[in-house]
Amino acid sequence: MKKLIIVCSLLIPLIISAVAVSKDDTIKIKHTKEIADDATPYVLNQLLENKAAKEIVFEKGVYHFYPDKGLNQFVYLSNHRDVFVRTAFPIINYDGFTIDGQGSTFIFHGTMLPFHVMESQNVEIKNVTVDWAMAFHSEGEVVKHDEKNHTFDVKFFDEYPYELRNGEINFIKEYYEHDLGQTIIYDKERKAISYNCIASTPISTVQKTKVRHNTDKVKYKYKVDKADLTLRKNGIENRISMEEVEPGVVRFFNHKKELPPIGSILTTKGQQGLNRVAPAVSVKASKDFKMDNVVIHHAGGMGVIVENSENLTLNKLKITPSGDRVVSTTADATHFVGCRGKIEITNCYLENQLDDAINIHGAYQEVVEQLSDNQLGIRMGHHQQEGYHIGRTGDKIGLVRLDDSFTPYKEVTLENIKVINQRYQILTFKEKLPKGIVAGDYIENLTAYPEVLIEKNTFRGNRARGVLLSTPKKTVVRENYFHTQMEAILVPVESSKWYESGSQANLYIEGNTFEDCNHGGADRGCIRLHTDENNENIAFKNINIKGNTFKMFDNTVLEVSNTDGLVFEGNTILPTNTFPRLHKDSPAFILKSSKNITFKNNDFKGKAPKLMETDKKMSKVTFQ
Amino acid sequence: MKKLIIVCSLLIPLIISAVAVSKDDTIKIKHTKEIADDATPYVLNQLLENKAAKEIVFEKGVYHFYPDKGLNQFVYLSNHRDVFVRTAFPIINYDGFTIDGQGSTFIFHGTMLPFHVMESQNVEIKNVTVDWAMAFHSEGEVVKHDEKNHTFDVKFFDEYPYELRNGEINFIKEYYEHDLGQTIIYDKERKAISYNCIASTPISTVQKTKVRHNTDKVKYKYKVDKADLTLRKNGIENRISMEEVEPGVVRFFNHKKELPPIGSILTTKGQQGLNRVAPAVSVKASKDFKMDNVVIHHAGGMGVIVENSENLTLNKLKITPSGDRVVSTTADATHFVGCRGKIEITNCYLENQLDDAINIHGAYQEVVEQLSDNQLGIRMGHHQQEGYHIGRTGDKIGLVRLDDSFTPYKEVTLENIKVINQRYQILTFKEKLPKGIVAGDYIENLTAYPEVLIEKNTFRGNRARGVLLSTPKKTVVRENYFHTQMEAILVPVESSKWYESGSQANLYIEGNTFEDCNHGGADRGCIRLHTDENNENIAFKNINIKGNTFKMFDNTVLEVSNTDGLVFEGNTILPTNTFPRLHKDSPAFILKSSKNITFKNNDFKGKAPKLMETDKKMSKVTFQ
Repeated sequence: MKKLIIVCSLLIPLIISAVAVSKDDTIKIKHTKEIADDATPYVLNQLLENKAAKEIVFEKGVYHFYPDKGLNQFVYLSNHRDVFVRTAFPIINYDGFTIDGQGSTFIFHGTMLPFHVMESQNVEIKNVTVDWAMAFHSEGEVVKHDEKNHTFDVKFFDEYPYELRNGEINFIKEYYEHDLGQTIIYDKERKAISYNCIASTPISTVQKTKVRHNTDKVKYKYKVDKADLTLRKNGIENRISMEEVEPGVVRFFNHKKELPPIGSILTTKGQQGLNRVAPAVSVKASKDFKMDNVVIHHAGGMGVIVENSENLTLNKLKITPSGDRVVSTTADATHFVGCRGKIEITNCYLENQLDDAINIHGAYQEVVEQLSDNQLGIRMGHHQQEGYHIGRTGDKIGLVRLDDSFTPYKEVTLENIKVINQRYQILTFKEKLPKGIVAGDYIENLTAYPEVLIEKNTFRGNRARGVLLSTPKKTVVRENYFHTQMEAILVPVESSKWYESGSQANLYIEGNTFEDCNHGGADRGCIRLHTDENNENIAFKNINIKGNTFKMFDNTVLEVSNTDGLVFEGNTILPTNTFPRLHKDSPAFILKSSKNITFKNNDFKGKAPKLMETDKKMSKVTFQ
Repeated sequence: MKKLIIVCSLLIPLIISAVAVSKDDTIKIKHTKEIADDATPYVLNQLLENKAAKEIVFEKGVYHFYPDKGLNQFVYLSNHRDVFVRTAFPIINYDGFTIDGQGSTFIFHGTMLPFHVMESQNVEIKNVTVDWAMAFHSEGEVVKHDEKNHTFDVKFFDEYPYELRNGEINFIKEYYEHDLGQTIIYDKERKAISYNCIASTPISTVQKTKVRHNTDKVKYKYKVDKADLTLRKNGIENRISMEEVEPGVVRFFNHKKELPPIGSILTTKGQQGLNRVAPAVSVKASKDFKMDNVVIHHAGGMGVIVENSENLTLNKLKITPSGDRVVSTTADATHFVGCRGKIEITNCYLENQLDDAINIHGAYQEVVEQLSDNQLGIRMGHHQQEGYHIGRTGDKIGLVRLDDSFTPYKEVTLENIKVINQRYQILTFKEKLPKGIVAGDYIENLTAYPEVLIEKNTFRGNRARGVLLSTPKKTVVRENYFHTQMEAILVPVESSKWYESGSQANLYIEGNTFEDCNHGGADRGCIRLHTDENNENIAFKNINIKGNTFKMFDNTVLEVSNTDGLVFEGNTILPTNTFPRLHKDSPAFILKSSKNITFKNNDFKGKAPKLMETDKKMSKVTFQ
């Protein structure tokens, strides 16, 4: 049996080629037609054959990367679908490596992972522009209404081929397709999400099935996730249907909300769970990672997803759509799970992506059972956390029961993790566990929270939030510009659905400009501290909001709950007339289940008829 | 970075548990309620913690195995969908190990791989019955016709819950679901595929879409497989629709063929490509594997799939449905790809599976390009060959151009394989390659063909063929009983679609009984030698068919093409009245593009009006 050639494609196979490989520290890629037409096999071969290289430098030009000869990698990607991706850049197990595009543009085709950084340190990506030949989403303009029949027509642009199957649209891409799924409208003049988009989108694509027979007899021995890709289909059928009225123009029937305004751009990206398959950059289990002067025009998922990593620096990252597209990446611009050390995001311009600009959090995991005096069987709560590792040997793990407190009732030290499968792991701790742990309790990693600096960035035009913050370490959000569809800054405890951990503390929001945020239509604070848990316990501490300018077309500046210690000082609130006001009765400041809240030296010129709303149990707070 | 806990779930993680593990050679599993209710975590822990054990023995009883705490394995399974499976039996890297059920029944739940044998030798599985709590297919009885509207009603049995989504049926299982997809009818009295089933099934479920816009502009740089799971959906929509007429009874509209007879059992297993996810036994890269006295009632795929292995013995394997089910496994009973040494299949009883009883073949791979004087880039032709390895260092690889010859024009020696991705590998050979290799040429492994003994087995009741043979090594098919829907024995070159290699030679078919084979309705020989290639070259050599009994309701006993040397001697052909004759004008023997064909001492009592049909170029063959 020893003679068998065991080359597991899930590992990193070597590649031998006749092409000569430079053995210098620097791999130099010339811009020849042969290479540039499909750079994948050449670049991959150079990297795999020259593992000691410290740098790969591209002669400036446009390079195409096809998946056909790309290295195969199965990747568990948090907040993405776990998939096989092809890559030309397997940056795995490096200590010190730079990818320098020297101003080049890399155009990817199909389900590829442009940059796959894993178990490496001191990796830098710079001076490169990333785009895809065909987008993972599709766009069209709303061109006609039929008020009587409540239908609307969309003209899909030429770069988004489609077909109708039994009255359902499917967009056909290279190596990929998507159905309607998640939709939202953009304002093509502002090149941003439309004002009050929630009145007409998302399109409700599904409804309950009427005919089910014996399906209630399918029982499960253990807890299952009804959101997983199989179970979520149970009991659901398509609600919306379509008809082509002329080539390229499709009529939508049975739309539930208002008709989307004529002239708005309808964007569609297929179903949640299926539609995040190709982020531009994945960084896992790495340290001291930098990106400098990188442009990401598109990705079928996030721009940058970082997991279990330490010290991350993004400078002059620009996320913006190319050509006539209104959408850049189809999910968050940047997202950080279980990171430590320091995250610095500076001088970035993140716009038009279909989810948050920045999301920083840890991960709760759920106790299945106690297996011995120092072992727990634990379960990943969300299907997009499959395969996630909560930490490293020596990390402090908090035992949490959120009904009782957002603060762990006990800390233990992680000894090791045994991965049984995507959902189930066995964790061993250095100490004996306390008595009384029950199934359903949560754990979180108390060591794996980062310090954060978010400075001099622009966040605009995207769906969803600007910045989501969940770390108790010092976090500075300074001198940024926000124009976001939902909250500019959300400080959450998102325990129940997303299993995202980390109760924010020591937050400094200073000198930022917030302009017409929450224009999507929801009645929420421009800055919002909020927990999913319906209790009055303290989640957030030491929050400082100073010297910011809030330009508000609507009323609510700040919403606070479950907070101990918040100073709102020296801020200016100005009215705008950019959009009609949506929630004219809402107060400027909403406070509940909180204490030690101070307002001083603020300048309020907003339109809200009522300045402050506090719940009855709280002591009186005066706006100053 | 070294402190990171790198436990890749794609590898074989260790599992630590508080449960004491016996350190003897034999792991003894007691039949306690706690273990038997979900034996997965206990059995898995015993195996992983006691890798030196030589045997695991189960106290006789019924054991359930759930996937929730099963070991996660991504498996490339030839002729199956490549999937993550959960298993309690990761028999990987063993030398000498026996699983003895002592008459126990193992009941699996969901997408599990009951026995995962890889890179091991001297492994035996015995005295165990395998079943699934919920089947991966569904069954119902045809209860009503509406001739006028050409609809039929099916009453689905209680163990097959379903729901209708937009008029399309979906069957709901534990952790799984399937749509209508592939269908065939069974005769419940005979407990076998219905006579002339092809008149009414399979149900044509799809049709071309009418509306496509710009989809012709999606171009590919390289060859793509239009049968792969994404591309196959292009241009296709559902044709058939359903309506529930009373609870459990579903009416089918727009059926293309004849209405399936009332009283027949309609079986459905979902779409090809999606519906083979859980074979009962997978053996890969192993040697000296045995199964003895094993019953497989069901699997969501094949009973036994063996790849790249050597010396395989199946004795007293019984594949048969449990309870009221008419279907056993949803794909082949047994299937062997790229095996060598000897395959012995004796005293087995293989019935009611939804594909062939035995299929033995190699794999063609397609040349993409020559990379150097001893390197080829090659491509897996079929999407269910992804991840397949053609052989080991030292194997003789044949270079084939099927248009010219079924025999390789050159042999070279495999040095190594570099796996780039699922479809693309780089092969290095010890010798320089000949000139003139072009993209589209095939390669096959000439070393990895087995000797075969198939003796004293029963093959009945299944869809498709009995035995498919593609090995030039000595093959004996002796004293078996056949009652199959299609050919009893098919000797093919299936190059164009399935990329299955191996031109059979040295075949001895002796003393078998063939009873009413080909009753599905196709006009084919009970034994058939056939190539996909439309040429007159010789593919098959030294075929001996002696002393067999053919009990024939229909005419054609033997169909031969592309053969040099066939002796048909001492056989008896008897007529039966089991079914009405379907092809009354067909000859008993059809010969073309062949030579050296001899008939002697046969006893023909069949019904065929014409005994022999030969093509004009062949010399005259006389039946004797």
